[in-house]
Amino acid sequence: MNGRFLAFAGGAAGAWRVTRMSAVAGEPLATVERVAVTGGAQPQESAGWVLRGATSNERYLRGEERAMLAAVQPPLGRPAASEAALIPIRKSAAWWALAQDERRAVLEERSRHIATGLRYLPAIARRLHHCRDLGEAEPFDFLTWFEYAPADAPAFDALLAELRATEEWRYVEREVDVRLTRA
Amino acid sequence: MNGRFLAFAGGAAGAWRVTRMSAVAGEPLATVERVAVTGGAQPQESAGWVLRGATSNERYLRGEERAMLAAVQPPLGRPAASEAALIPIRKSAAWWALAQDERRAVLEERSRHIATGLRYLPAIARRLHHCRDLGEAEPFDFLTWFEYAPADAPAFDALLAELRATEEWRYVEREVDVRLTRA
Repeated sequence: MNGRFLAFAGGAAGAWRVTRMSAVAGEPLATVERVAVTGGAQPQESAGWVLRGATSNERYLRGEERAMLAAVQPPLGRPAASEAALIPIRKSAAWWALAQDERRAVLEERSRHIATGLRYLPAIARRLHHCRDLGEAEPFDFLTWFEYAPADAPAFDALLAELRATEEWRYVEREVDVRLTRA
Repeated sequence: MNGRFLAFAGGAAGAWRVTRMSAVAGEPLATVERVAVTGGAQPQESAGWVLRGATSNERYLRGEERAMLAAVQPPLGRPAASEAALIPIRKSAAWWALAQDERRAVLEERSRHIATGLRYLPAIARRLHHCRDLGEAEPFDFLTWFEYAPADAPAFDALLAELRATEEWRYVEREVDVRLTRA
């Protein structure tokens, strides 16, 4: 999985067992038992759904913010981080119609998305995948994958609650919250 | 062609006849006679090459810059604009590793990409397509399509010469310049 493109296949197989699925906004995803994370952008067979995404360049992060994050952010795959969350999000047309500085102002100057995330490091590992420009049929704009130790689950819930209360989240028109544990 | 995804197929067919092809940096594209512009992100059959891309949200433009552009930028498809250029570009890993504010500083504060483009409006119509996050096999990061009247061809060449002399262009590792005329 050295490539930038990944697929999250929900079905009966996979290294992660689903413990809870909830639709935070908009349509839910079909209930599945497992999620398999694989490399490659090609659509795959799955009993349930397949979400694809690509890691990409930073869209909002400034140089000094990236340096702060780099100093504290943990890698994926820590043995103690046996819990995970997959949170696919689609933002509204109104969000995408904003100019770059307008989106940055909502995301950070007014919603403190980056600063809030920083406060939960190094407990929560995170990787963002973009899917908006991947193809016409993609149901989400982003897929974020998080990993944390069971003891940090309450902190992770607090992080999500903070973010979901922001002005940025008024632009979220679909969000599903899939919680997993290493199978 | 209402969708965001388009394909530019170089081969023996298409509404645009190729008048000149040159490799500005890196590998050339195979010589073709025509280019067909079609909707849809699916790979297509072609005697030559197929480049795909998607129009997307603005990555660098500020609100006030977008307003200035919107006031003067012409649409594609003007009857007098019988000349076109398709310019696929790939930027280096060093470019993509920069933070958002660092890329903006190179692109506009130091290279005046947006301000320079504005000076050539309304003569030159332009549409930018992104392909970096479209799939693993995409040979370019962007495809830009320009349309102008024959009398504005020298101005278009001057615009390209200005841009290619900037700091931003030091990050361009592959660029092909395909000139076309309505067949």
